[in-house]
Amino acid sequence: MSTLGNRRPIGVFDSGVGGLTVVRALMERLPLESILYFGDTARVPYGIKSNATIEHFSAQIVDFLLHHAVKMLIVACNTMAAVALKTITARAGNIPVLDVIEAGARAAVSASPGGRIGVIGTPTTINSNAYARRIHALDPSVRVYSQACPLFVPLVEEGWLDHVVTRLTAREYLRTVLAEEIDSLVLGCTHYPLLKPLLHDVVGREDVKLIDSATTTAELAAVRLNETGLAADSQSHASYRYVVTDIPLRFQTIGERFLGRSLENVERVDIENDASGKPPRRRRTDFR
Amino acid sequence: MSTLGNRRPIGVFDSGVGGLTVVRALMERLPLESILYFGDTARVPYGIKSNATIEHFSAQIVDFLLHHAVKMLIVACNTMAAVALKTITARAGNIPVLDVIEAGARAAVSASPGGRIGVIGTPTTINSNAYARRIHALDPSVRVYSQACPLFVPLVEEGWLDHVVTRLTAREYLRTVLAEEIDSLVLGCTHYPLLKPLLHDVVGREDVKLIDSATTTAELAAVRLNETGLAADSQSHASYRYVVTDIPLRFQTIGERFLGRSLENVERVDIENDASGKPPRRRRTDFR
Repeated sequence: MSTLGNRRPIGVFDSGVGGLTVVRALMERLPLESILYFGDTARVPYGIKSNATIEHFSAQIVDFLLHHAVKMLIVACNTMAAVALKTITARAGNIPVLDVIEAGARAAVSASPGGRIGVIGTPTTINSNAYARRIHALDPSVRVYSQACPLFVPLVEEGWLDHVVTRLTAREYLRTVLAEEIDSLVLGCTHYPLLKPLLHDVVGREDVKLIDSATTTAELAAVRLNETGLAADSQSHASYRYVVTDIPLRFQTIGERFLGRSLENVERVDIENDASGKPPRRRRTDFR
Repeated sequence: MSTLGNRRPIGVFDSGVGGLTVVRALMERLPLESILYFGDTARVPYGIKSNATIEHFSAQIVDFLLHHAVKMLIVACNTMAAVALKTITARAGNIPVLDVIEAGARAAVSASPGGRIGVIGTPTTINSNAYARRIHALDPSVRVYSQACPLFVPLVEEGWLDHVVTRLTAREYLRTVLAEEIDSLVLGCTHYPLLKPLLHDVVGREDVKLIDSATTTAELAAVRLNETGLAADSQSHASYRYVVTDIPLRFQTIGERFLGRSLENVERVDIENDASGKPPRRRRTDFR
């Protein structure tokens, strides 16, 4: 693999803006790496769709990113990682594929000497049982306690990150899991890192580690880039590009909350018609 | 128009399952009328998408329903009615088009002798200012006070219809509007009728009328069918058919909560490829 080949971007994708928490962690952990982000904002959320639909959408996105010559794929969407990983890996050929569930499962097992792990996520992620399966593949003796938290995503998008309603909702959702004396709690959705301070309070115990899939994914990406010899060279200049299928109301505000910095170079693409990877037919830079 | 022509179904459409509250009200008010319901469950929610995307999706749905020979179109989605009504009406040609905003605006003006109306809805509906415009077209002297309530839809879908979290959320959202001494409050989203008892408590005043767009739309449909001579004859047997773009997890449970009865004859259609109205390529009746 040539040095210039290593300057190809990492392709990071999600059903919407949530995956920008992973991009943020990658920027901090791997400042030399370029990133091409794909957010399927026209069809978000995936968590309420059927498996067949999620697989179909995932395949379209992978084709788009491969056409744009990414060197690695990061599935920054728990729902896609839970439901469509086989489809994605098959489509990717010899391009390495990482995902937030793999990263979260590894970090949780390391952080849980007592072998008791809690997992929270969207209904689709939790019902897929994907975290429990990946955790058990690493260590069959671990016990996993899961809880779906369907209101957390809308609460984060409302910006109620430290609000009594969010606190009450978190208490209700976490009650059963916390009764199980867990060692760690996996935040199994890319929106949840924004709730970390509030969840820390609600958990109320310093010995329970909160596993944030954004930072754990960035860590796993660093390891995998070294293993595969794909890391960017020290003369590289990172560039960031964001492709979305829709630029809705408040996109800029919400996106920047996730990314933790200003959001530039955003392009809109019509994936239903341009899945082949042709240049976008319409570009919009006017944020409303 | 022949009598048999009047037995054609009414086409009712929404971005998801919310429009089933309108179907329920139509079944009760107009028991002889057949209904073809279209719910775009693969691409729900529309409330967070751009105007261009909402118009594009609305046009696809109208084409599908017209191909299935509906006699009237009912836009049972506040977002589509707010954003895409011109596109829908133009596409419908001489088929009458009714929508939930028109119905709600008319009912609110009648119910507000003091000329002070509150409107709640999704961010897209409220930001579109569609209710205020339609209300002012009927009576320019009325004052309209609006409030977006983005968490109400996920709270309804979670089934927290009488929950302390929903009550606190409603109190926070309604505080400003209630300070305006309104005569009526328009529930400007098809999900909100399920919150009617809780909202009634939170409003806390018997003289504030809650305007439910489901029943008001059924009432307006009855008037319009008579005006246009399109009402089904007394020998008609109503039939109900539901077409959706995806059959996600919990579809059956949530759908029946909205419809208030069992949900049968559900078909899945791939609107992105079958907008021409060809028979669905895949049908699924297995609810997961």
